[in-house]
Amino acid sequence: MSEALRVIEGGREIAELMRDIGRRARRAARRLALASAAEKNAALAAMAAEVRAATPAILAANAEDVAEARAAGQTAAYLDRLALDPGRVAGIATAIESVAALPDPVGRVLASFKRPNGLVIERVATPLGVIGVIFESRPNVTADAGALCLKAGNAAILRTGSDSFRSASALREAMAKGLASAGLPADAIQLVPTRDRAAVGHMLAGLDGAIDVIVPRGGKSLVARVQSEARVPVFAHLEGVCHVYVHAAADLAMAKAIVLNAKLRRTGICGAAETLLVDRACAATHLAPLVTMLLDAGCAVRGDETVQAVDPRVEPASEEDWRTEYLDAIIAARVVDGLDAAIEHIETYGSHHTEAIVTDDAAAAVRFFDEVDSAIVLHNASTQFADGGEFGFGAEIGIATGRMHARGPVGVEQLTSFKYRVRGSGQTRP
Amino acid sequence: MSEALRVIEGGREIAELMRDIGRRARRAARRLALASAAEKNAALAAMAAEVRAATPAILAANAEDVAEARAAGQTAAYLDRLALDPGRVAGIATAIESVAALPDPVGRVLASFKRPNGLVIERVATPLGVIGVIFESRPNVTADAGALCLKAGNAAILRTGSDSFRSASALREAMAKGLASAGLPADAIQLVPTRDRAAVGHMLAGLDGAIDVIVPRGGKSLVARVQSEARVPVFAHLEGVCHVYVHAAADLAMAKAIVLNAKLRRTGICGAAETLLVDRACAATHLAPLVTMLLDAGCAVRGDETVQAVDPRVEPASEEDWRTEYLDAIIAARVVDGLDAAIEHIETYGSHHTEAIVTDDAAAAVRFFDEVDSAIVLHNASTQFADGGEFGFGAEIGIATGRMHARGPVGVEQLTSFKYRVRGSGQTRP
Repeated sequence: MSEALRVIEGGREIAELMRDIGRRARRAARRLALASAAEKNAALAAMAAEVRAATPAILAANAEDVAEARAAGQTAAYLDRLALDPGRVAGIATAIESVAALPDPVGRVLASFKRPNGLVIERVATPLGVIGVIFESRPNVTADAGALCLKAGNAAILRTGSDSFRSASALREAMAKGLASAGLPADAIQLVPTRDRAAVGHMLAGLDGAIDVIVPRGGKSLVARVQSEARVPVFAHLEGVCHVYVHAAADLAMAKAIVLNAKLRRTGICGAAETLLVDRACAATHLAPLVTMLLDAGCAVRGDETVQAVDPRVEPASEEDWRTEYLDAIIAARVVDGLDAAIEHIETYGSHHTEAIVTDDAAAAVRFFDEVDSAIVLHNASTQFADGGEFGFGAEIGIATGRMHARGPVGVEQLTSFKYRVRGSGQTRP
Repeated sequence: MSEALRVIEGGREIAELMRDIGRRARRAARRLALASAAEKNAALAAMAAEVRAATPAILAANAEDVAEARAAGQTAAYLDRLALDPGRVAGIATAIESVAALPDPVGRVLASFKRPNGLVIERVATPLGVIGVIFESRPNVTADAGALCLKAGNAAILRTGSDSFRSASALREAMAKGLASAGLPADAIQLVPTRDRAAVGHMLAGLDGAIDVIVPRGGKSLVARVQSEARVPVFAHLEGVCHVYVHAAADLAMAKAIVLNAKLRRTGICGAAETLLVDRACAATHLAPLVTMLLDAGCAVRGDETVQAVDPRVEPASEEDWRTEYLDAIIAARVVDGLDAAIEHIETYGSHHTEAIVTDDAAAAVRFFDEVDSAIVLHNASTQFADGGEFGFGAEIGIATGRMHARGPVGVEQLTSFKYRVRGSGQTRP
């Protein structure tokens, strides 16, 4: 057989494999939609127990993944994200249990109204259906995403990065045992059983309508590919170019605490601040202390001319800096002429993720809340609160900046759809 | 210039025209998002007044459309949908006023919770942004869709069928005058100013991200094209193959009233019943009266063998009949072996739109509600209640069968998105 023919054959095989995964997920989803909260929670408990019991197998598989990634020359930071140890496996099991402890999002009555003709109409939360999750090489996502999808009554099709394929397979095997022992279909959580990249393309095309939504978990290039190619809805954010705006009426001590936390608590998360806007009206008193604080804390500052004048360590900011998600100890800083200019900057350069205003002026906060078109807007609080756990959602599968269905942290409630239930006593329409 | 080059030139012009429409809609949307309920309602009132004042111009434009369509050999039913008269124009103006009378959907607090650290988090309804509406030759959709989008703070890009282009243009001109007189941008409601079909393709591609959602209003071929080509979310239903299931414990008189109404009140709407399922357990008493009633009322019945045995007027049903949306005085009918078989039939052949069960058995109704995966499920009521007005939404832009964001009747509330507003007092994340 020629090489070209072999490729086509391989493509056909992958296509059929993926279609089959889609069909099995659809069947499992129909069963899950009828599972009670107790059934789902029993399955999650069993999954956690099976993960604990499989710790040696999971660690052995992970050691192979790590060895291969090290041989391929991956960085220490990358290997650290990939590596599991007994404590991390225990943490994965505990995380599954904490999902079980969340309130069941299915069956919630979202609205209820009685019509003059006596019809009682309820809007009731239902599972979304089948969720495709495409992620990179963090093995724990296998368990987190699978557990969250299950809790909301959805089937999950998980596609892991190649480097964590063995770890994810071992984790999924334990989870499948837990599902089966609790009487739920093992197909409720499937892992794409090939490293072939063509599988991702099939998922983005929706597997003949089997996938209802795709959730990418990973870096900007993965999310960008998913957003541009997906033929089904996507819950994601491309980047978090988050702003802290220190308004004219900001308390300096509060501004310092919030800016420091928003930028430096953890620099690698999407809710980390990337741009500091300081109002010209308070620049004389607030700018230098804020900039000096950041520089002294080890943060590089790239500023406009006014900011550069504060300290020789400040580097000049380019136009590109205002659009950059550093995910590092770097911040872009500029002085703005009032609230309108701050909002204009955020709308021009921002990513509609998370923005904060620091001010004692309630009216300014209201305008910021109204006019900034971001998933999360905060008043006198750090942007690093952009997180499902911090919102009380228990856990999140990601943060979305789209405007449809899910926006902000995506927890189990956001993984549901709804239907209308109408109760009558023989009503016909006039 | 060669013909090929001219086509390319024309394509470029349309692309640039459409991009410009998208940019203007985006700008208008930003202004509308900040418009108060009073501003929007004043604009709607002014739009209604301008439509009334422009009645002669609207009727003149419509007369040209009708003459052209008649010359092109369109059917009487088609011409009737297209034609306006003074009463219909007055009805259009009244419909705009009734949208003004609806509660404002923007700014509703959808959820509110306080975190242990004192943060107060609110989920607040915001406009969706820019809505593209693609419709056929019913001139009133220009006003209905424009008014609903505006009420929810969205900019609308309307694309009408060629046959009502002049009527829609005259209506939109009056509405734009109303918008401007109320101080809102006329670009809040734009009409694609060309009959060139390439414009639809550009809208489906999203106009460089300017369009947030597409709503097709029209027949199955339009909706199918939009669903298969759109690169942005779509609110729509492809068809309504709606079922009435007469359960073993159904009251016969109630079943007769509901079946008659569900099928024949209006046969051309998406909530009209297309398939009757009668439980074998009550077939001996219920089947003949139901089938005879339908036949006597002028409805053709296509049935399985048991149904055919009831009356010689019953024609045999083919496999295709179970999947068919007749939108006419025709019904497919079959006897099913209990609730499970009824649900299985609906899940196999249905369109996930609207289904009803008639029964006095509450437990059967609960199982039907849980297991039928449709946007609307009814107990002891006619499927023809599948309508935004009947749900109390005031008006609807359509009915959706997708699982994301909007499902069932799409009224002004469904044309909103949301954001999280977080109020703190200096909180930083530990």
